[in-house]
Amino acid sequence: MSAIETLKSELAGLALEDNPQIVRQKSRDFFWYSPVLKQQLDHVTADLVVTPRTEAEVIRVLRACYALDIPVTTRGAGTGNYGQAMPLSGGVILNLADMNRVLSIRPGVVVAEAGAIISKIDEETRAHSGQELRLHPSTYRTATIGGFIAGGSGGVGSISWGGLRDLGNVLSLKVVTMEAEPRVLHLKGADLSRVMHAYGTNGVITEVEMPLTAAYDWVDVLVGFDDFMDSVVYADALANQDGILLKQLAPVVAPLPHDYFLRHQKYIRRDQSVVVIMVAPFAMDAFATFTASQGRASILYRSDQADEATLKTLPPAYELAWNHTTLRGLRVDPTITYLQVLYPYPDQVEKVRRMTELFGDEVPGHLEFVRFDGKITCFGLPVVRYTTEARLDEIIRLHEEAGCPIFNPHRYTLEEGGMKQTDALQLAFKREADPKGLLNPGKMIAWEDPDYDFSSSKVFLFSGLTPA
Amino acid sequence: MSAIETLKSELAGLALEDNPQIVRQKSRDFFWYSPVLKQQLDHVTADLVVTPRTEAEVIRVLRACYALDIPVTTRGAGTGNYGQAMPLSGGVILNLADMNRVLSIRPGVVVAEAGAIISKIDEETRAHSGQELRLHPSTYRTATIGGFIAGGSGGVGSISWGGLRDLGNVLSLKVVTMEAEPRVLHLKGADLSRVMHAYGTNGVITEVEMPLTAAYDWVDVLVGFDDFMDSVVYADALANQDGILLKQLAPVVAPLPHDYFLRHQKYIRRDQSVVVIMVAPFAMDAFATFTASQGRASILYRSDQADEATLKTLPPAYELAWNHTTLRGLRVDPTITYLQVLYPYPDQVEKVRRMTELFGDEVPGHLEFVRFDGKITCFGLPVVRYTTEARLDEIIRLHEEAGCPIFNPHRYTLEEGGMKQTDALQLAFKREADPKGLLNPGKMIAWEDPDYDFSSSKVFLFSGLTPA
Repeated sequence: MSAIETLKSELAGLALEDNPQIVRQKSRDFFWYSPVLKQQLDHVTADLVVTPRTEAEVIRVLRACYALDIPVTTRGAGTGNYGQAMPLSGGVILNLADMNRVLSIRPGVVVAEAGAIISKIDEETRAHSGQELRLHPSTYRTATIGGFIAGGSGGVGSISWGGLRDLGNVLSLKVVTMEAEPRVLHLKGADLSRVMHAYGTNGVITEVEMPLTAAYDWVDVLVGFDDFMDSVVYADALANQDGILLKQLAPVVAPLPHDYFLRHQKYIRRDQSVVVIMVAPFAMDAFATFTASQGRASILYRSDQADEATLKTLPPAYELAWNHTTLRGLRVDPTITYLQVLYPYPDQVEKVRRMTELFGDEVPGHLEFVRFDGKITCFGLPVVRYTTEARLDEIIRLHEEAGCPIFNPHRYTLEEGGMKQTDALQLAFKREADPKGLLNPGKMIAWEDPDYDFSSSKVFLFSGLTPA
Repeated sequence: MSAIETLKSELAGLALEDNPQIVRQKSRDFFWYSPVLKQQLDHVTADLVVTPRTEAEVIRVLRACYALDIPVTTRGAGTGNYGQAMPLSGGVILNLADMNRVLSIRPGVVVAEAGAIISKIDEETRAHSGQELRLHPSTYRTATIGGFIAGGSGGVGSISWGGLRDLGNVLSLKVVTMEAEPRVLHLKGADLSRVMHAYGTNGVITEVEMPLTAAYDWVDVLVGFDDFMDSVVYADALANQDGILLKQLAPVVAPLPHDYFLRHQKYIRRDQSVVVIMVAPFAMDAFATFTASQGRASILYRSDQADEATLKTLPPAYELAWNHTTLRGLRVDPTITYLQVLYPYPDQVEKVRRMTELFGDEVPGHLEFVRFDGKITCFGLPVVRYTTEARLDEIIRLHEEAGCPIFNPHRYTLEEGGMKQTDALQLAFKREADPKGLLNPGKMIAWEDPDYDFSSSKVFLFSGLTPA
């Protein structure tokens, strides 16, 4: 009997799925955003999907897989786009979709199971006490809170609150280790960084405690500009207005808004660059006053002045932003891809100008303004009109030489997609929590190849990757 | 019959007070913080106090005083300390204390009459929907919201929201003009700056619409340092933590905390500088983690770990901060006074270091960290061990020469206490709203003496000031 067959019998009574088509479907995330990852990982699939309903069932799965040396890759909703939930060596997909309860709500705090859909959490906290999460990805209506913490960095709300990595944006996590006898750890404070943004390589996050803020009926606004750089200067100035409460602020260069935002196309000329904004309803007077003072800006659309029938036809502004911009682009033009860039403070506007001049319409700009270490600056998620992998690497190199670090979404390892260095805390915790290295194998280079040279220009090749 | 006697008969039925002792008491604010203003203004008194209960009564008072050429100085609770409510030419004190109702509350917004006490507004908005005002002065429990808008600049909450001047921190104001037939204007957006921080010189604010934010049971914390500059560096870094929600952040140099914070004295060594902080309760883990990472910082007191009996003996942290630091100092040592300084970003820490080295214990530092134009920086409200007016002027000059602007609290005019230039919007609106110049006379130099040379080092002398 194969190890997987033994596992199935040992996990009798749990929700198991071994239909190859369904297993393959649950073995995929949004890795296909990247033509590079699509080629590398398209064949990847697990052997079995287990969908636990309780922490006790998670422990049972991890104990059994540990004994049988079966890899376990944890999955939320599979909306990540760096391949975080792809089971490179097969084995078990641990699908947390059924661990989705909101456990408690109090002023400023929600506790939920890791598989809870982010928008569903907000529905409950809004109804309970007019509160909502500080941060969410553009996949608000599908992503799980655990998956966001395990692989996200920030998103909608980062204009006010910074990123997930910032102290205070995650309050505590329950994590189950993969040992002969799995332990349940409750991490908080400095210990959180051990498992955050670790793709589930060193523990299974089963429960999260997150800060809440006041919920509002955010007003979606599109502001148009004839010149992209005017929109960037405007967004930078707006973000520095301390009294105007925003949740989202993203300049997108022409012709992307017209070409990609199909439901909003009627509001946008093809040569208009657009800033996608979410504004607190009571701040609309102040926002309009500020916008009028800036010149060259024209408000193209505001949801608080649209009728019900129109509103029903339009996606929310956050589904025009972050990786939904890319997603909408891919639907219109499957040949494009994208990058993730940081334009460091205080030269963010000037650096955007240089990259815009350098690449023109080969790398059309899409910026996301955020708080970063207490300052307003911007990330970029520029579209790339993809030709070859070599040219993509060159575009990356030119950004980095200009002082604009790239978080490469065309790599599936934590290090290559991130800071290109070993995270000593994550590595040390993996030694403790996953001694056999069975959790999401192949994603942490520091574990797979401790002597790997991050300064080389090579791409890491995980030897355990299932052959295509 | 004198004009005042005529006025009394015309205002029959309104709440009038002409007992000289009570009138004198209601003609005073906290001008005596300044030894300079104390000398200039101690004799000032109105002739009559009128306490209207409705907007209609305000209109009646202004109409009658206009006809009789009687000056009107509007008063909230008289907690300002630049002499804003001192009736320099006598006449009527318009006391808004009885116009104190909260009119409506909705998500993010409260509407209240101008005479409402700020803490009373928060009591109602907290009970209604867990909301509170963004900003308040340290005189939270006595000051009125209208007085704060007419003369304040920011305070507790400015670490998150910037100042009152920032778009979005006041939503709309109702203002009554002083004309033959007074008008009621509803100002919002760009028009708000006409009457904000104008000391009631160009209209009587009767109703305010203010933004609200989520209310929490803020935790009061004192963090101690052996070296003041370490406390400044710490506070600057803490303020730049985007995920740690604070409401207040004020370093105070030794020996002030020990000597002035008498109820907290048992927690503080005399050679300890202290940072006075208000932290959201759910952020305490993150706050403690950050503080532990900074070294040299020790948490001396946190209200969430104090017992009920102790809590009853201690004032809230906001009553150790802003001008309450000064007030506590004056109680211990009536010979001191203070200044108000801006240390502009990005050199705030270095500028504080230079001033600290230059003046030592003659000007002991008290800083208030705030958001200012989107960046973290700090104001100073340093104590000054007062000797002579000449030395005080020299201390001011040395600050300004070092690039640290002074908002001089030893002057009673808007310009000298502020930006030392005509506010064209305020002046234009005064022409329209107070054509006879009867509202709070002597406070707006641009009105009294259009050709005044603000670059001179002279002190403005208002010719209408009642002789001592």
